[in-house]
Amino acid sequence: MEIDYDSIKVIGFDADDTLWVNETYFRNAEIEFAKLMAPYETANKVDQELFKMEMTNLPLYGYGVKGFVLSMLEMALKLSNGTVSNVAIESILNIGKGMINKPVELLDGIEEVLEKLSDKYRLIVATKGDLLDQERKLEKSELLKYFHHIEVLSDKKEANYSRLLEHLDIHPSEFLMVGNSLKSDILPLVNIGAHAMHIPFHTTWTHEQVTNEDTNGKNYKTLNSVSDILKILN
Amino acid sequence: MEIDYDSIKVIGFDADDTLWVNETYFRNAEIEFAKLMAPYETANKVDQELFKMEMTNLPLYGYGVKGFVLSMLEMALKLSNGTVSNVAIESILNIGKGMINKPVELLDGIEEVLEKLSDKYRLIVATKGDLLDQERKLEKSELLKYFHHIEVLSDKKEANYSRLLEHLDIHPSEFLMVGNSLKSDILPLVNIGAHAMHIPFHTTWTHEQVTNEDTNGKNYKTLNSVSDILKILN
Repeated sequence: MEIDYDSIKVIGFDADDTLWVNETYFRNAEIEFAKLMAPYETANKVDQELFKMEMTNLPLYGYGVKGFVLSMLEMALKLSNGTVSNVAIESILNIGKGMINKPVELLDGIEEVLEKLSDKYRLIVATKGDLLDQERKLEKSELLKYFHHIEVLSDKKEANYSRLLEHLDIHPSEFLMVGNSLKSDILPLVNIGAHAMHIPFHTTWTHEQVTNEDTNGKNYKTLNSVSDILKILN
Repeated sequence: MEIDYDSIKVIGFDADDTLWVNETYFRNAEIEFAKLMAPYETANKVDQELFKMEMTNLPLYGYGVKGFVLSMLEMALKLSNGTVSNVAIESILNIGKGMINKPVELLDGIEEVLEKLSDKYRLIVATKGDLLDQERKLEKSELLKYFHHIEVLSDKKEANYSRLLEHLDIHPSEFLMVGNSLKSDILPLVNIGAHAMHIPFHTTWTHEQVTNEDTNGKNYKTLNSVSDILKILN
């Protein structure tokens, strides 16, 4: 089915791994953490257990670096049976600080796309995660000037998006969401009658993975790179 | 000088220690932390050092429980000279989880005030802190129905409020802010030409304290309790 984009007035961009690199830093942190835990478990097991711990703590800590660090610390105590060294604890705290202080690395072509689209559409950022982290990254990115509104959501489910559209005072058919996560940026939008374009990032957090069944029959476009948006919307 | 409240259209409420108890839980957590650190330092010194650590980490971690826990952990390593036990580390993680899981305890009279004011004014929440923490507390509080909009700010400086008012599409003279912190809820508003009512809470975080010089000549009302708003606005 052809998609009609003429009705679009507002375009929402996901931030992490859509505007800039993010997941790569989490992957690297997990590798560092697995090295610290090498005396107790294989890297593979450490990864699996850490992911489980993150999922257990997600309702409590939410998304973002701080909750990730707290989960690593709890995991370190558990994997080591309460014998992990203070040096390792300090290293884990420093992994977190390093992540927060990382420079913002924009994805290829993003600035040109935002510049061109901002002439014709109202652009917003719709991201989940830690409020301060995301504001800091937006500031560092120097992309703020292209956006009409920044929305940091505590989660990206259908209800969160419906509230956002209500707040923006637009009909779902007037909204296009662009992002790298099928689970968070694409499917909830398609399910509420909005548009969505999927731009896969080379690595996806396990939590964001979906099955073929989830995507079957859903109407959204997949693009190779963000620059391809301009071929469709301009 | 008499203040003219006739122009007010929107009333913003701070959340922590204005709608519900919060600071008390931080004070109690500090007492628990000082007990864990008793082998290394006096409670008084632990308090002082922890506050300094929080201030150092504030630009990195922002406000909220998670950053507070990360600062306690860093402090524990430092105060113990890298000898703190895994049991104490675990206790600190659990202090944080306990804080996040605390039930929401509304301040006296708040619900009646919101119910009456919501007939005549648009009410919003303007809070700083952790996005997920604040959303969770609002949910638990069952006060959401009175509010037209929830704004979680990464900080509460003049610029943050100016952006909020712009976003709400109202003039500063049409906005009244109600809160317990002179530094965060009152002075920035008065300074940008909006109205403010101060309702002191019995305990104030050192970071939120201001001097007489800061408040000298500033035009705002101080109330004994939130119910007093109804005497002025109704």
